[in-house]
Amino acid sequence: MKDKLTIALDCMGADGAPMVEIEGAALARIRYPKARFLLFGRAERIRPLLDGHPALVACSEIIDTDQVISMEDKPSQAVRRGRDSSMGRAIAAVRDGQADVAVSAGNTGALMGLAKIMLRTMPGIARPALASLIPTYRGESVMLDLGANIDCDADNLVEFAIMGAAFARSVLGLQEPSIGLLNVGVEDLKGNETVKEAAERLRATRLPMRFVGFAEGDQIPFGKLDVFVCDGFTGNIALKTLEGTARFISRLIGDAFRSSLMARLGYLICRRGIQQLKLHLDPNRHNGAVMLGLNGLVVKSHGSADGEGFATAIGVAVDMARHELVQQIASDIEGLTETGGNGRQAVAR
Amino acid sequence: MKDKLTIALDCMGADGAPMVEIEGAALARIRYPKARFLLFGRAERIRPLLDGHPALVACSEIIDTDQVISMEDKPSQAVRRGRDSSMGRAIAAVRDGQADVAVSAGNTGALMGLAKIMLRTMPGIARPALASLIPTYRGESVMLDLGANIDCDADNLVEFAIMGAAFARSVLGLQEPSIGLLNVGVEDLKGNETVKEAAERLRATRLPMRFVGFAEGDQIPFGKLDVFVCDGFTGNIALKTLEGTARFISRLIGDAFRSSLMARLGYLICRRGIQQLKLHLDPNRHNGAVMLGLNGLVVKSHGSADGEGFATAIGVAVDMARHELVQQIASDIEGLTETGGNGRQAVAR
Repeated sequence: MKDKLTIALDCMGADGAPMVEIEGAALARIRYPKARFLLFGRAERIRPLLDGHPALVACSEIIDTDQVISMEDKPSQAVRRGRDSSMGRAIAAVRDGQADVAVSAGNTGALMGLAKIMLRTMPGIARPALASLIPTYRGESVMLDLGANIDCDADNLVEFAIMGAAFARSVLGLQEPSIGLLNVGVEDLKGNETVKEAAERLRATRLPMRFVGFAEGDQIPFGKLDVFVCDGFTGNIALKTLEGTARFISRLIGDAFRSSLMARLGYLICRRGIQQLKLHLDPNRHNGAVMLGLNGLVVKSHGSADGEGFATAIGVAVDMARHELVQQIASDIEGLTETGGNGRQAVAR
Repeated sequence: MKDKLTIALDCMGADGAPMVEIEGAALARIRYPKARFLLFGRAERIRPLLDGHPALVACSEIIDTDQVISMEDKPSQAVRRGRDSSMGRAIAAVRDGQADVAVSAGNTGALMGLAKIMLRTMPGIARPALASLIPTYRGESVMLDLGANIDCDADNLVEFAIMGAAFARSVLGLQEPSIGLLNVGVEDLKGNETVKEAAERLRATRLPMRFVGFAEGDQIPFGKLDVFVCDGFTGNIALKTLEGTARFISRLIGDAFRSSLMARLGYLICRRGIQQLKLHLDPNRHNGAVMLGLNGLVVKSHGSADGEGFATAIGVAVDMARHELVQQIASDIEGLTETGGNGRQAVAR
């Protein structure tokens, strides 16, 4: 396992940039004392914040970049003009072997576009996917694709499953993660041809994962499986529905506690339990979506993350880099070709 | 508006059948004093329960049926052999004009299969859809399709939108419901060709609805729109994710209140607020999925509904029948053809 890591941080992406990134890096340094940080962004803004964390100064380097990609920039603009931005330079550091992984809280579309064009897709993978950790009743599960691929065929889903499994092994530390394809029912006959074909191929694979077949939407929040696989259209809508429902109920809980004087009093008494609940659902504690299937590792933090949240995203980056996820996926994809039979079709195009 | 309604009830479908159905009918009779009820099922089990509600006896008729469709029956079996079951006879009553609407808490697949074959699809509608009311922060929204159609084209989505709008007008009492197509983003360029084409056609329609374009998953729980339209694959997964997330968080709340003696005390003090929250999310209060696009009205209650929940489903049935939803949809579809242009394609096949 690789331990001395170099992490490239786009320090200009978060809503609260660059403070959020520097505070996140300071927290991450305590957790990963052997890590080095390359801080990309406006030096005159980063320097004074960094000086507040002497221990971080010792293991960091600021790379001054003038350009910044904004949330309003279109992916096409970013791809054309963004290579010299803090985001583009952080990705370039991964591409050129100066860093093991890049983390950015900036514009998702721009990050995906730049990462795809600068790092390129791995051999054997047709399309990279966006994966994320989801808070569940059991802890955390992995879900992909979350919107990078709107139309998917069975080959894509098979590759997503393999990449999701490798991600779960490294980030969740599971030996043999359980994996299912999201569908309208768990019976073999349910669903469209794409998921049925993907299920058939996944059943034939011999890889360190336990493919259980189909999964339904309500199994996601209960964490019934370690990895939920679907096309990017369904995954994006399901994830946003899940996040929206969590926010909606949090708001209802807030309303309930404000509904009367007695309720306010009740809240004061049981607030520790409620705070634990909030903590469990806190997006900052489940931060870090990843682009899987590229020749290099890139992590996307929520734009609204605070320092703690950005540190969580750095943690995901560290786990991926330590486990050399790109190599893991490459060898899994190779293993898939070797199983022959149906499995072969997934990469033989 | 039609007021003297006859409602056909499959009394053998709920987990707690036939008690749930009879209690539901007794509650519905109070709410809709002019309604008549046809009670299909095993007379020897229904009679003693019915006798406990003298006012209901006066406006009900028991039709003894021997056969019952179980939750284990496959839709194909139900379609072949289920016509003489309590479910099949209730649907037949609608088909033959003896009842205005049928309600069943039985096997969903069997109900959809039987309803489709016995009532047939309306002229101008290619495929019937399953719609439901969703509890939201604002109240309730309509969502369809929820799984009746796995693969959908733009024509299907346009028809779903029209049927969903008619449903929202009658059941939610809205003059001009707001409607959106679920997508991975709200911008025009987002999504697959199917949703883009459907959006283009819906923009060209002149019907009593306000088409807003695309909607994202997190807008569902917040009730940002009155009607959310999508294919049955996405809709089924999104709805189950929403329901699962609500159950998951309810469980976390329960855990939080049981986490310490203080938390239990707090719960006692603020339980009224929490009970309001539970009531807001209570599936019994948002019960009644409907099959839209058939030559007759059929409502599906949750199998686990209690009498109150079944009465809610009867309420949905009453609203639909009162507003003569089948005729409404028929005239909207006709209106669509008259607008010409892109709108025409939706029905000219």
